[in-house]
Amino acid sequence: MDSRAMKIAAAQAALDAVKSGMSLGLGTGSTAEEFVRLLGEALRSGKLRDVRCTCTSKKTEEQARSLGISLSDLAQLAPLDLAIDGADEIDPKLRLIKGRGGALLREKIVEQAASRFIVIADASKLVQRLGVGLLPVEVTPFALAVLQQRFTAMGLQPVLRMQDGAPRVTDEGHRILDVRIPSNQDIGDVVTQIRENAGVVETGFFPREAAEAIIATAGGIRRMHR
Amino acid sequence: MDSRAMKIAAAQAALDAVKSGMSLGLGTGSTAEEFVRLLGEALRSGKLRDVRCTCTSKKTEEQARSLGISLSDLAQLAPLDLAIDGADEIDPKLRLIKGRGGALLREKIVEQAASRFIVIADASKLVQRLGVGLLPVEVTPFALAVLQQRFTAMGLQPVLRMQDGAPRVTDEGHRILDVRIPSNQDIGDVVTQIRENAGVVETGFFPREAAEAIIATAGGIRRMHR
Repeated sequence: MDSRAMKIAAAQAALDAVKSGMSLGLGTGSTAEEFVRLLGEALRSGKLRDVRCTCTSKKTEEQARSLGISLSDLAQLAPLDLAIDGADEIDPKLRLIKGRGGALLREKIVEQAASRFIVIADASKLVQRLGVGLLPVEVTPFALAVLQQRFTAMGLQPVLRMQDGAPRVTDEGHRILDVRIPSNQDIGDVVTQIRENAGVVETGFFPREAAEAIIATAGGIRRMHR
Repeated sequence: MDSRAMKIAAAQAALDAVKSGMSLGLGTGSTAEEFVRLLGEALRSGKLRDVRCTCTSKKTEEQARSLGISLSDLAQLAPLDLAIDGADEIDPKLRLIKGRGGALLREKIVEQAASRFIVIADASKLVQRLGVGLLPVEVTPFALAVLQQRFTAMGLQPVLRMQDGAPRVTDEGHRILDVRIPSNQDIGDVVTQIRENAGVVETGFFPREAAEAIIATAGGIRRMHR
């Protein structure tokens, strides 16, 4: 199976957890996109009915709306029955790094408001130790330059996320600094230090949000539970 | 002495800590306003020279600019030699509640970027236990309604800060929920729980930022050190 086929397989397995009448949080990114597409098909075919959804990004909102999926504000649906979203890295304890798509803040807000959060991914996202890639840190613009200085002094090699030649602006109006977790440090400790700095709004470290993972591998679907 | 005379006395005592050539962070609120006014006078009279400042709010920026005080972005000056700001409550350990003026986030960013932060206040701000009044919590708009629900469930009686009939929007584009600390709980523990919720940007609890306090009392200036 290629990467896209694995994403679809994971999304299809997650769809089995959705029942008519549920309230759902819809994630952001290429794997979540496959789930939203399959959900739209299930609603159109009548296989599922009366599913009310809220989205973790404006991008997912556009996709869901184009598929005729019924959308509401998070507050009207919370607590959600279920949230489904991808991840960038998943460790054996079901801790995640998310946010390379830039939606980490809304994702964490929605997923903390869900009774159950299932992460869906292909096998390439499994890691022994989080921090193989970069950790996104969402910051308020006023603090951006001082936080860049401070993270540099902490050895985190911060890089300002760009888009179309300008700093990427998140749906909440913030900026993103992508940092590297030093290989001799624990990500939990580093995130605690990062969060002590005023102006840090959120990080892409999700230590306890996910209850389950559905991982599509070449050998079939693999499930992880907390 | 009346309340304003005490604020002026504290501001005057803080001005003695300012030397020519320093970089300063200027606070927000009625006591900080007296300090900025006195600083402007000292610069105009030539008693102080070459003091470069950055502000914790647009309101203070306007005042400082009207007095001809030289302003720079925080990042150009950081680390600051000194920050001077008021507080709403000060406990015997020099822990503070700030932000009833709505500038808590920029205040904390600036004061964490200062080598030394002196809090100035009149004696009415001294408390044995923080939480006599409300604690401001700055939140991102997307999470506002779910956080109101969650803080209510935590017994914190959140109230959305209003201004001119609409929700108050901070300089950073966020909203403020004012919460009550339950009298049988420690503010440090409550703030830890509050901060575990995605969408919380900052709180008005300043546990370790202030190095000194200059308190104007009816009997004269009282100084507190950490």
